[in-house]
Amino acid sequence: MTIQVALVGTGLVGSAILGQLALPTLAKHCLLVSLSNSKRTLFSPGGIPLPLPSPDHVQSQGEELLLSQVVDKLKSIKDKAEKTVLIDSTASSTVAESYPDILQAGISILTPNKLALSSSAALFARIQETLAADPSVRLLHEATVGAGLPIISTLNDLVRTGDKVKRIEGVFSGTLSYIFNHFSPPSAPSPPPKFSDIVARAKELGYTEPNPHADLNGSDVARKLTILARLLPETPIPLPEGYQSVPTSSLSPEGLEEVEDGDEYVRRLADSDYEFESLRRQAQDMGQVLRYVGVVDVEKGIVKASLETYPATHPFATSLGGSDNIIAFHTERYNRPLIIQGAGAGAAVTAMGVMSDLLKLV
Amino acid sequence: MTIQVALVGTGLVGSAILGQLALPTLAKHCLLVSLSNSKRTLFSPGGIPLPLPSPDHVQSQGEELLLSQVVDKLKSIKDKAEKTVLIDSTASSTVAESYPDILQAGISILTPNKLALSSSAALFARIQETLAADPSVRLLHEATVGAGLPIISTLNDLVRTGDKVKRIEGVFSGTLSYIFNHFSPPSAPSPPPKFSDIVARAKELGYTEPNPHADLNGSDVARKLTILARLLPETPIPLPEGYQSVPTSSLSPEGLEEVEDGDEYVRRLADSDYEFESLRRQAQDMGQVLRYVGVVDVEKGIVKASLETYPATHPFATSLGGSDNIIAFHTERYNRPLIIQGAGAGAAVTAMGVMSDLLKLV
Repeated sequence: MTIQVALVGTGLVGSAILGQLALPTLAKHCLLVSLSNSKRTLFSPGGIPLPLPSPDHVQSQGEELLLSQVVDKLKSIKDKAEKTVLIDSTASSTVAESYPDILQAGISILTPNKLALSSSAALFARIQETLAADPSVRLLHEATVGAGLPIISTLNDLVRTGDKVKRIEGVFSGTLSYIFNHFSPPSAPSPPPKFSDIVARAKELGYTEPNPHADLNGSDVARKLTILARLLPETPIPLPEGYQSVPTSSLSPEGLEEVEDGDEYVRRLADSDYEFESLRRQAQDMGQVLRYVGVVDVEKGIVKASLETYPATHPFATSLGGSDNIIAFHTERYNRPLIIQGAGAGAAVTAMGVMSDLLKLV
Repeated sequence: MTIQVALVGTGLVGSAILGQLALPTLAKHCLLVSLSNSKRTLFSPGGIPLPLPSPDHVQSQGEELLLSQVVDKLKSIKDKAEKTVLIDSTASSTVAESYPDILQAGISILTPNKLALSSSAALFARIQETLAADPSVRLLHEATVGAGLPIISTLNDLVRTGDKVKRIEGVFSGTLSYIFNHFSPPSAPSPPPKFSDIVARAKELGYTEPNPHADLNGSDVARKLTILARLLPETPIPLPEGYQSVPTSSLSPEGLEEVEDGDEYVRRLADSDYEFESLRRQAQDMGQVLRYVGVVDVEKGIVKASLETYPATHPFATSLGGSDNIIAFHTERYNRPLIIQGAGAGAAVTAMGVMSDLLKLV
């Protein structure tokens, strides 16, 4: 079977995807026919050879096209292969809002972009209707939660084989995992670290967004919870209307929302160090640690993202390190939880999540 | 797409598979056309309605057929559906040895049966050749390692997306997990339990084979390691010729191999309690626990199943409970390991592993 692949987005993840597409295991089944950055598209039904001759190949050789024009071009060559897929490796809401049109054109979508699946219920419903109308078209998004970790596929397998999911709980943000693994380790740190110092280090290491506010406000976790909750047949009531409607505790201090510069943000975050230290100390005095977790509790009808305390002997305390994600599925069949853990962020592992979806189609 | 399904084996796992096949998510794509126990087969190209009217339906309504005759019948109706699959939920080596013939007949195989993939290199090679000759035919075996846990699919995704697996390490036997989680917990037990008492309890709970020798001799772990090692492109040298060739430390005391009765086996195991207690005590004095683990170390060229010690703070000590499996993949891409944990035995979760493979074909 041959799959025609169009890739939109040539950032870190897009580049890692190109690298994996060039591997023999994938190259023998897949033909890269279109490659777009935010401005230009290189469209070549005969196939774009990999690796690219230069990093600015699309910019220099591509033409200015709207996404809708790219979709039209893909539609025109659809019959040349058994399947045509568009990989959205952007963080663009414009691309996300086009999903119904792309799917309607008979083009499957693979994506690590959380926006389409975690925004308004109206967009989500339109996507579901389009998918239901044409079973040959797929939308696969393993990499939206846990990057390369098999989270979405495992949840789908549990549900489709008739298990009842009672609760999903985990550390879903690689950034917040790094920050709290270092700020609040199982054994009391001496001297106690400053919260803003750890955020600054995470920023230096490239683990945060350019402005760490986007990590500390919890929205990334809330979006992932929305995606998971929507995959459940018995969605916790009320069905989230989008990530904004998931109760989310923001760790970003009041007054700092408007600070645009990331470095200034971290400097001013130091004013709140004493508050974080007081939380850490309280937890430590009770033999506990702080972790920013997300919960989808089907039985209690709760979906929320918040800072919680866990005993220092809990797996969220002992076995996490680096920027690990950990996700525990509590189900009827698994009376002890099914747990998946590992790096939940990074270009190579995110690309792996997308490619594992592509391998399912092969 | 419609898939014609033939199920061979109506034991605990087979029955759980029938239960899951009756779910709407699977029933709308799958038609059960053949059902076999060890003696008889009920063959019905129009479909066998589920649930079965009675537990002895196959025995009372089926006819005596050899497996080769079942395969011939399946071959004769193959064109009526897009795919025809045989699910081998036996522990039979006769069925395992027929895999090349079944695949050659254009019938895909799904199985939790480890025998075909972990026995002689000759059988394994014949299976690989048959699969290579006809890409439309598949052999999927998620449930051979870790039951419903996504172990095989994750390893395949890592390999196919170009990651380099350096080491796979884990607790692969639910039975030995239960035994050592209770015999050698992270905090010193008081009074120290007797090894044979714990094996007796595991036997009562149905966690062991009828004769626990089959668990304690490590062969189940060795077979799983053989399967994993054979999935790697850079197989550790030497490529195991079958599970027997994986270095395996047996925990079954000398002289007890010949004891046929399980209860007598456990009684006589008590004579060795002092040896196990001495191992446990030695580990405990160094702040460690005992775990029976399997390792596939690509870098060192080692594949082995053995009793090892781990610090009491290691995830194999702290986060395991019940009869959990835990498997850690150390790879180039995942500098901290990708870990999957949860129940690794039981009919429902094993059936889920098989059904997740079936869902991949749907």
